[in-house]
Amino acid sequence: MADETGIVTMDKIVSLCKRRGFVFPSSEIYGGLGSTYDYGHYGVLMKNNIREQWFRSMVQERDDMVALDSAVILNPKVWEASGHVAGFTDPLIDCRTCKLRFRADKLEDAHCGKRPSKRPGEDAQCDLTEARQFNLMFETHVGALEDGSAKAYLRPETAQGIFINFKNVMQLARRKPPFGIAQTGKSFRNEITPGNFLFRVREFEQMEMEYFVSPDEAQQWWEYWLEQRFQWYLDLGLRRDMLRIRAHEADELSHYSSNTSDIEYLYPIGWQELEGVANRGDFDLTQHTEHSGTKLEWVGQDGERYTPYVVEPAVSIERIFVAMLVDGYDEEIVADRDRTVLRLHPQIAPIKAAILPLIAKNDEMVSKARALQNELRHRHMVEYDDGGQIGRRYRRQDEIGTPWAFTIDDQTLEDDTVTVRERDSLAQERLPLSGVREWLEDALEQPWSSPKQ
Amino acid sequence: MADETGIVTMDKIVSLCKRRGFVFPSSEIYGGLGSTYDYGHYGVLMKNNIREQWFRSMVQERDDMVALDSAVILNPKVWEASGHVAGFTDPLIDCRTCKLRFRADKLEDAHCGKRPSKRPGEDAQCDLTEARQFNLMFETHVGALEDGSAKAYLRPETAQGIFINFKNVMQLARRKPPFGIAQTGKSFRNEITPGNFLFRVREFEQMEMEYFVSPDEAQQWWEYWLEQRFQWYLDLGLRRDMLRIRAHEADELSHYSSNTSDIEYLYPIGWQELEGVANRGDFDLTQHTEHSGTKLEWVGQDGERYTPYVVEPAVSIERIFVAMLVDGYDEEIVADRDRTVLRLHPQIAPIKAAILPLIAKNDEMVSKARALQNELRHRHMVEYDDGGQIGRRYRRQDEIGTPWAFTIDDQTLEDDTVTVRERDSLAQERLPLSGVREWLEDALEQPWSSPKQ
Repeated sequence: MADETGIVTMDKIVSLCKRRGFVFPSSEIYGGLGSTYDYGHYGVLMKNNIREQWFRSMVQERDDMVALDSAVILNPKVWEASGHVAGFTDPLIDCRTCKLRFRADKLEDAHCGKRPSKRPGEDAQCDLTEARQFNLMFETHVGALEDGSAKAYLRPETAQGIFINFKNVMQLARRKPPFGIAQTGKSFRNEITPGNFLFRVREFEQMEMEYFVSPDEAQQWWEYWLEQRFQWYLDLGLRRDMLRIRAHEADELSHYSSNTSDIEYLYPIGWQELEGVANRGDFDLTQHTEHSGTKLEWVGQDGERYTPYVVEPAVSIERIFVAMLVDGYDEEIVADRDRTVLRLHPQIAPIKAAILPLIAKNDEMVSKARALQNELRHRHMVEYDDGGQIGRRYRRQDEIGTPWAFTIDDQTLEDDTVTVRERDSLAQERLPLSGVREWLEDALEQPWSSPKQ
Repeated sequence: MADETGIVTMDKIVSLCKRRGFVFPSSEIYGGLGSTYDYGHYGVLMKNNIREQWFRSMVQERDDMVALDSAVILNPKVWEASGHVAGFTDPLIDCRTCKLRFRADKLEDAHCGKRPSKRPGEDAQCDLTEARQFNLMFETHVGALEDGSAKAYLRPETAQGIFINFKNVMQLARRKPPFGIAQTGKSFRNEITPGNFLFRVREFEQMEMEYFVSPDEAQQWWEYWLEQRFQWYLDLGLRRDMLRIRAHEADELSHYSSNTSDIEYLYPIGWQELEGVANRGDFDLTQHTEHSGTKLEWVGQDGERYTPYVVEPAVSIERIFVAMLVDGYDEEIVADRDRTVLRLHPQIAPIKAAILPLIAKNDEMVSKARALQNELRHRHMVEYDDGGQIGRRYRRQDEIGTPWAFTIDDQTLEDDTVTVRERDSLAQERLPLSGVREWLEDALEQPWSSPKQ
């Protein structure tokens, strides 16, 4: 595997992201804000593609799914019922000298505020408190009460917004178990030790689906979703040997879960969770039933009655984003020149096709290239580029993962054909101009697998 | 105009939204959370369509635009520089008796906390303070400092995330004025007097674009964007006589703006801002240059140097969402029966086509209907419905704005044709099953205008 030879390091991914404007540190002109990132042009396009693929496979192509978009700031009772107010915490230690806080369970990785910085407790001046529990939810206050009693939280997960709407949605959408509710959206966690690029960030975009089933079918649905979700990554071209499934040990299972497995990816920092698939049982619906007084249960026409179990595949766009960049990143030497290429699945690639007039000053070439651009861009994200030597333009597109380039050249002026160059194989063939759109749309639907080994 | 005859009231829109699961009050099982809404299945689909249309016209189909997705929680210095910490306020009055807060400029609409409720100040027990300025930004705290000094804000607009990335983006994307940076995303405002359904909500999704131009071209670009944005609404089928442009009076202009016009829509509550198009001048880039010490300016190769002016079209998805529902809502009597129909532009309609087997128990019809569904849904949001009489199924689709229904009936079994029923005209024609997909994709690209008058 390329990645075990050290070709793909996190530094190279971060560097490419910054250089080509996929992702860069937020608020940089003000010195940044720890572990917060802004997404540039290609990053936005790639995130949109990931979200759309998820939505297509989870909602659009299924009969048993309902979409939802719940608010970020919910009634605070939601988080009491869910257990987040009491239990969504990290153990923290304060230093009375430098006034910094550290995760008690990660002291060995921490640096104190003194210069030269040491591990907390290492210096004689360190004056550490006992560990206390620190809640990871961002707090804020809503509305008009003078005494500030309207404390509220930014959601740390989208899942609870689904549970509290279970009854609403089941009735309005005329559903019965098994059915799912899917949503994407930002969640916020006040991480004390964020880091590792996009791995542990304070705001991130979740894609969560809660699947409501009869209790005695929960185990089989959990197996079904684990398999479905694993296959989704393979279909999007992630390499099989970079993925694995790891069952949670008894001591790492959440209190509500009887069964959780992570789909892990071999990131440059090691095997890490890409997506989690949990059997949450009836914990959430039972909690919200108790706290709200509204019975969240299924009642069949034949009098059958139960609180559904919930199977949850949950992932953040950021983790998929990084996995796909790592999986696709490649360096090779072609014709004595270095080439950096992102071998992304065409559906994930930010730009589907580049349109390149060979000679930028040839009006006829430019005119035909612009006409092709206009034909394609209503339905596809394409990029017109007339800047510099054709080789340099190809390299720029390789680096952002553009699967195909259409070049308008001398022969185009003679016979209205264009050269299509394929990113991975570098193969070139000629197509009639009039057939480019259909060719592209067909190519986008073909299965794709990574040529990386 | 239908809306002046009182057919379309906000109550009817709210009722339809709740009945069909477009939008409903958030956290309802916990008694709600004032002016916060969750979007159900059709609401999510419709919002996605609005966002995609905006992104397509603003980014995908243009050469001069760069996409961005900046963080919600930025370095707090951003909001000092922008003027929001000092000036993004409403004047508030507290009542020392009932502990509630009121907008000083909206006292006549307010109710005090006593029962029976009166206007603040009306009752002898009311004990009102002087008006004080109350900041509309949600506050929170970020990270690890023990003394809580890391105060931060939820962004009240996405625009500032664009300004602070101006230099980054211009360099990475190799741009020069005129060019724009576009982004969509949630913003948050701690409104004291929210209300009117989705009009004034505490979290909303903005679609903002900042267009950077040479100062002496700012006026003409402002005119250009005002015209472009107005035309966008017409292209999406909003009725011409429900739209108008209104220039801000001198006394309502923001301090930074030399010119702002609103595109207004005639909502059931009257003419209200749909989108604002402002000439922000060089206010923002100058402020951030001063506060950050980073020069945010354009320097040409010929030594030309200036701080660009900014033209900003800014809108929230919620306002478009309501305008389109109001514009499309219609009631009529067809064949002696009431029909409620949403006459939405096909690109905006949540479901593009319904697929209806005439007789739900006829296996052959079901099989052909399912095959058609499978063919269409990879690329389009379609809905299979076999529940109840065909007339009821048509009505259900009318009410959510589905432009076409394909019915598989007896004749389909004979000659493999289907009936396509058009939502607005109720016209029916027959198509070969094998041509449905192409027919639908062609129909989706046709211009559409509202049959409502």
